[in-house]
Amino acid sequence: MALAESPAHDERRYFEDFVPGMEAEYGTVAVDAEEIVAFARKYDPQEFHTDPVRAAQGEFGGLIASGWHTASLMMRLLVDRYLSNVASLGSPGVDELRWLAPVRPGNRLSIRVTVLDARRSRSKPHCGLVRSFIEVLNEAGTVVMTVKGMTLMRCRDAGNQPARSAPDP
Amino acid sequence: MALAESPAHDERRYFEDFVPGMEAEYGTVAVDAEEIVAFARKYDPQEFHTDPVRAAQGEFGGLIASGWHTASLMMRLLVDRYLSNVASLGSPGVDELRWLAPVRPGNRLSIRVTVLDARRSRSKPHCGLVRSFIEVLNEAGTVVMTVKGMTLMRCRDAGNQPARSAPDP
Repeated sequence: MALAESPAHDERRYFEDFVPGMEAEYGTVAVDAEEIVAFARKYDPQEFHTDPVRAAQGEFGGLIASGWHTASLMMRLLVDRYLSNVASLGSPGVDELRWLAPVRPGNRLSIRVTVLDARRSRSKPHCGLVRSFIEVLNEAGTVVMTVKGMTLMRCRDAGNQPARSAPDP
Repeated sequence: MALAESPAHDERRYFEDFVPGMEAEYGTVAVDAEEIVAFARKYDPQEFHTDPVRAAQGEFGGLIASGWHTASLMMRLLVDRYLSNVASLGSPGVDELRWLAPVRPGNRLSIRVTVLDARRSRSKPHCGLVRSFIEVLNEAGTVVMTVKGMTLMRCRDAGNQPARSAPDP
C-alpha cells in the first residue's frame, strides 16, 4: 500500500464544516499483488484473491482484491484526507455498498466524496451525523466501489445549539 | 487472530443448497490489541483504534477495533464456514451494515447467518444470487455488527434450468 503525497489535512474541521453538496477528490493509494494476497489470506481466503494461477483460470481472469480490502483502502483515504481527528467519533454503519468492478494489482485508487446530508443529534447534543456518498475510482477513472457512509462528528459550538423548546428569537 | 476449531466445511455446496430461512451459527475468531492496532495503523488510523492511552481517555473508554476490521473478521468466518469454494463467485455488495457495539481486545466473535432469499440469475444462467442476514456476536452474546450480504453462487444444475418460455409440465 503506497499513499501518494497530499496537501496537509485540515485537522480543525468539525461537524459544521461538512456542508451538504460539498464534493472533493482525494488520493491516491496504490495496491500490489503481495498486499492483495496478504490481506486475503488473513480475512478472505477465496482463490480469486489468494492464488494468482487459479485466479487467472477463473471467473475474473486474474487476481482481484477482496472487497473488504478495497473498503479498507477507501477508509485509509477517508481518515487521512476527509475526516478530522478532532471531530470523528466513529460510525454507526454504511448503506448500499457496491463492488462494481474488480480491483487488480497495480491499480491506484482515489475517492470522490459528496456530503449528502448533515444533521445535529438530539440524543447527543455535542455532535451530529454526516452522511456521505463515496466513490472509489481506479487510475482509469472507472468507479470500482460506491458506498453511502455515516460519520458521527463533534460540533464546534457544542453548547451553542438552541434548546428545542426555546422560542424563536 | 485465532480461529477456533470447527467441523469440516462442506465444499460441495452450490446455490441450490442455500435455502431461504436456513439459519446457522459459526465461530469463533479471537481478536487482540496487537491485531486491532496493526489493522488500524494500516487502514483506519484513528486514535481510538491505534492508541490505547488516548483511546482510554476518549469517547469509547478504551481501544476498539475498526469497523472494517470487524467486517473482515466476519468475512473470514463466512469463507471458512458458510460459503463454498466451488460455488462462490464474489459479491456485488452489501446493504445496511451497522456497527452496533464496540469490539474490544480479547473479544471472541462468532456469526449467525440467515438466508433471506435466493434467486437464479437471468443474465448468468449458471448462477444465482443469495442474500443473507449476518449478525456478528461477541462471547457475551451481544450483537456487535449486522449486515445484509449478497453472494453470487454457481448452480449445481447449471444446464438444467427450464427456459423461461417453457410450458408448465
